[in-house]
Amino acid sequence: MSRLKSVTPFLVMDILRKARSLKDVIHFEIGEPDVPPADAVKQALSQAALEGKVGYTESLGLWELRQAIADFYQRRYGVTVAAERIAITVGTSGAFLITYAILLSAGERLLLTDPAYPCYKNFAHLLDIKPVFAPIDASTDYQLTPQQIRDYPGIRAVQISSPSNPIGNVYPAASLKALIETCEAQGATFISDEIYHGLTYEEPAHTALEFSDQVIVINSFSKYFSLPGLRLGWAILPPNQVRNAEKVIQNLFIAAPTLSQYGALAAFDEAYLRQTTETYRQRRDYLYQALSELFEIETRPQGAFYIWANVEKYTDDSVLFAKQLLDEIRVATTPGLDFGQNQAHKYLRFAYTRDLAHLQEGVRRLQQFLR
Amino acid sequence: MSRLKSVTPFLVMDILRKARSLKDVIHFEIGEPDVPPADAVKQALSQAALEGKVGYTESLGLWELRQAIADFYQRRYGVTVAAERIAITVGTSGAFLITYAILLSAGERLLLTDPAYPCYKNFAHLLDIKPVFAPIDASTDYQLTPQQIRDYPGIRAVQISSPSNPIGNVYPAASLKALIETCEAQGATFISDEIYHGLTYEEPAHTALEFSDQVIVINSFSKYFSLPGLRLGWAILPPNQVRNAEKVIQNLFIAAPTLSQYGALAAFDEAYLRQTTETYRQRRDYLYQALSELFEIETRPQGAFYIWANVEKYTDDSVLFAKQLLDEIRVATTPGLDFGQNQAHKYLRFAYTRDLAHLQEGVRRLQQFLR
Repeated sequence: MSRLKSVTPFLVMDILRKARSLKDVIHFEIGEPDVPPADAVKQALSQAALEGKVGYTESLGLWELRQAIADFYQRRYGVTVAAERIAITVGTSGAFLITYAILLSAGERLLLTDPAYPCYKNFAHLLDIKPVFAPIDASTDYQLTPQQIRDYPGIRAVQISSPSNPIGNVYPAASLKALIETCEAQGATFISDEIYHGLTYEEPAHTALEFSDQVIVINSFSKYFSLPGLRLGWAILPPNQVRNAEKVIQNLFIAAPTLSQYGALAAFDEAYLRQTTETYRQRRDYLYQALSELFEIETRPQGAFYIWANVEKYTDDSVLFAKQLLDEIRVATTPGLDFGQNQAHKYLRFAYTRDLAHLQEGVRRLQQFLR
Repeated sequence: MSRLKSVTPFLVMDILRKARSLKDVIHFEIGEPDVPPADAVKQALSQAALEGKVGYTESLGLWELRQAIADFYQRRYGVTVAAERIAITVGTSGAFLITYAILLSAGERLLLTDPAYPCYKNFAHLLDIKPVFAPIDASTDYQLTPQQIRDYPGIRAVQISSPSNPIGNVYPAASLKALIETCEAQGATFISDEIYHGLTYEEPAHTALEFSDQVIVINSFSKYFSLPGLRLGWAILPPNQVRNAEKVIQNLFIAAPTLSQYGALAAFDEAYLRQTTETYRQRRDYLYQALSELFEIETRPQGAFYIWANVEKYTDDSVLFAKQLLDEIRVATTPGLDFGQNQAHKYLRFAYTRDLAHLQEGVRRLQQFLR
């Protein structure tokens, strides 16, 4: 069982469990969209169900969906991606498992940032891959730098997310390009988690595919498309990795859920998606402003639906502080420790996945408690 | 990429691909049910879709579904299983990944049979677990024996399936009990793949849970319930492994697909299930009889939807023979080599996942070709 020893449970899950058992809790801890799915998607799912579409699809996914995703890249980014390079996966979770399995052998090193989405390192632990952590902070606007990649000559792959969880920062095109070039010069594969693409409030985010077709891009219908329970994502692979990915999918998953794939065909609804972005933008504008008056927020979040707040003027232990906020004012947040070790005790993550009135009530309680 | 080197692609997938490109093919190669899903399930899926049930469930699954499965064990087997011990998974594929991850560290040994379902060993390879193979054949009615378990003192887990893929044999209660006792005496965990339970044509199969609560039982909605595309299965765990499984699910999957879970609530429809078993029983009766006149079938299949046919009177290379059958009479089968190395060249697997008329046409072609 040694592979499990390093796998961390989410602290937020325990907070979630406690938060559920309490009444009248304000939810800043939830990384799941609250925006209802598009009607067209609900109808498509229902229709596919009534038609009895419950057989397996091909392992790499429905061809129409792979094409729809290729079209989306053409439309959104002006990037031509062959549908053959797109693998439909069981969420980004499935995409990460496949990506790590095809890129890294046991004992090989994967460069992650600290802080980062905690599952990255846990996937690595489960596959006996060695995660190494590059600390990121406000000094580089929470971006990994090319120098940090060069500091680890033996690494096989580098993984970032932009817009990032838990910070919400977005890598500019030039930064992304420099990281990819540095990776390729070192023979490491660049893995770009783009699950929060579309949820950007200044400039649109750039896809790593604009700079190279040797990267692996991972995305999903769980955030921007408001469909987390479909458990549906995708990976865009270098051409020579598609067959490897197919072998892993055949064995680990057989295929992604069928109804979900039919539903997703209806998810590329531009008007709905624009409205979704607008909803989160309004919340970002409000919550960033309000929390800035209470905490130090080093990086104005430009994407995703998170704010990374430095709370050290109130505490030197943000886990304890999160528990205190939940116990005393029923405000649930995620302690920094869920995302790494690097100065984690100073930070809380606030998610804006509830409506403005809910966020306002949370701010009111915080103001009263912290004044 | 060394972990991928040992992962075998399914030969049947290549045959499937070719079979799809041809017209008028008889399909004996497909391990996927053709029985349409129950109307109640289609309605439940549609209803859940229209209600917008697309959020995540808890990692271990919808509590009502875990309870419905617990009730099913009480009703079917007279076994009391706490719903808390049931984890809802992304198919049996997800259940195997979780089970192997929590039981076996890199380098530890897992005892499998040869032949067996090929994914077992491929999951092991992906996790750097060492599969060891106990050959099984007609001399023990294709059952693993307690002595074979004792032959491998250091193994951490033993995995069988009953009814089995590819043979269709069913372990009697006494055999199952003896295997479990032998495992426990050696400190190995017994893993029982029960995905074909319900599809039995003589006696009902026994669940390993009748003999111990330290086993791990894996099952799914993909075969007996005719819902493969839902990608929904379950694992029943020893109480002290539930928390470990939850940690792995949180990280590897987040949760199983939500709509699928709501649909599955309607899947325990006894009249529909009886009819499904009856459908396959008729096919088994016909195909076993008909193929027995052409090939040597050493073990009358009592469950699943497969017949394991010894074809050595026609060939000493069943892969070549399968290709020949596909090319010359458009009859698709699965060569034994997909399931292992042990005398694999002598065998073909025939699946009866098409209606009687289709099977009859296949037999007619085989008779003409082989006469």
